[in-house]
Amino acid sequence: MKQLKDRILRDGRCVGEGILKVDNFINHQMDPLLMEAMAEELARRFEAERPTKVLTIEASGIAPAIMVGCKMQLPVVFAKKARPSTMQGMLTTKVFSFTKSREYEICVAGAYLRQGERVLFIDDFLANGNAALGCLELVRQAGADMVGMGFLIEKGFQQGGRLLREQGLKVESLAIVESLSEGKIELR
Amino acid sequence: MKQLKDRILRDGRCVGEGILKVDNFINHQMDPLLMEAMAEELARRFEAERPTKVLTIEASGIAPAIMVGCKMQLPVVFAKKARPSTMQGMLTTKVFSFTKSREYEICVAGAYLRQGERVLFIDDFLANGNAALGCLELVRQAGADMVGMGFLIEKGFQQGGRLLREQGLKVESLAIVESLSEGKIELR
Repeated sequence: MKQLKDRILRDGRCVGEGILKVDNFINHQMDPLLMEAMAEELARRFEAERPTKVLTIEASGIAPAIMVGCKMQLPVVFAKKARPSTMQGMLTTKVFSFTKSREYEICVAGAYLRQGERVLFIDDFLANGNAALGCLELVRQAGADMVGMGFLIEKGFQQGGRLLREQGLKVESLAIVESLSEGKIELR
Repeated sequence: MKQLKDRILRDGRCVGEGILKVDNFINHQMDPLLMEAMAEELARRFEAERPTKVLTIEASGIAPAIMVGCKMQLPVVFAKKARPSTMQGMLTTKVFSFTKSREYEICVAGAYLRQGERVLFIDDFLANGNAALGCLELVRQAGADMVGMGFLIEKGFQQGGRLLREQGLKVESLAIVESLSEGKIELR
């Protein structure tokens, strides 16, 4: 998606080896009009899969997911990273975060992810794929179908995209980062 | 806002003394069309304050905030509850969570909250007001002005609304819960 790629090249910063900072328009400060345009593009790419629900994971997946849900008129569920004390009948799994060097639990109330649902997963970043694989596991635990996985930015030099596509999943990323070496952002 | 009040009475549940569960349409599973209608109403109520930025706090404030930002065409920043390793020049403060019985740190990059900005704070719930007061403190640290605070649901029997309004802040809540006793939801 040209609008996003141009913005990454203009406002993204490569900080240290392999880290792309887009916190001025994607995941700390957000540009809602760009977010809306990206949601529209994701909705277009996954329309044929006829999803019945959008799933994401807190926190930075929520903004793109709610806007995709709005465009597609679908309920949106976000997986939580800690088990709320008032939540019962949950689907849970463990995810290892490379950024934080620790394992954490993610969960979704079983009432909001049911057998037979056609799930579209949306997140801001696809890197090693751990969060996405964790959510895929929750969808499978529920007996639901993952019909598509859409990301704003994919790090093409990490394994997440390959791991998901190898399973035959439809994966779409609006921008794919080819490399981040020597402080330079290269897009595919 | 009638649409929200009707939905709370239909789908909200009172679980235990003082706890309102709206996780089937607000803060776990979200109804994006209701969210859009609520954002439109908040945008209308705060238009005259001419905000230049929307501020919220992760995670469940993000959905209403991004949609308000979209309606008002303003950048949206969400305060984070943990200090990201790649973030520098931060404004931070501490917030005590009654739900989790512990204190946590919230932070915003100084680059995204600047002197002279007119900030509209948006969140899903106003209860004891601790998260809102923490964000107010960040806005003041930045030398910015808090021109309004909008909430989807306020618990009128807790002190948050009073604490904020006593400071002369413009506070708007789309639904105010009067009481949650004996398993019954009463709205103002």
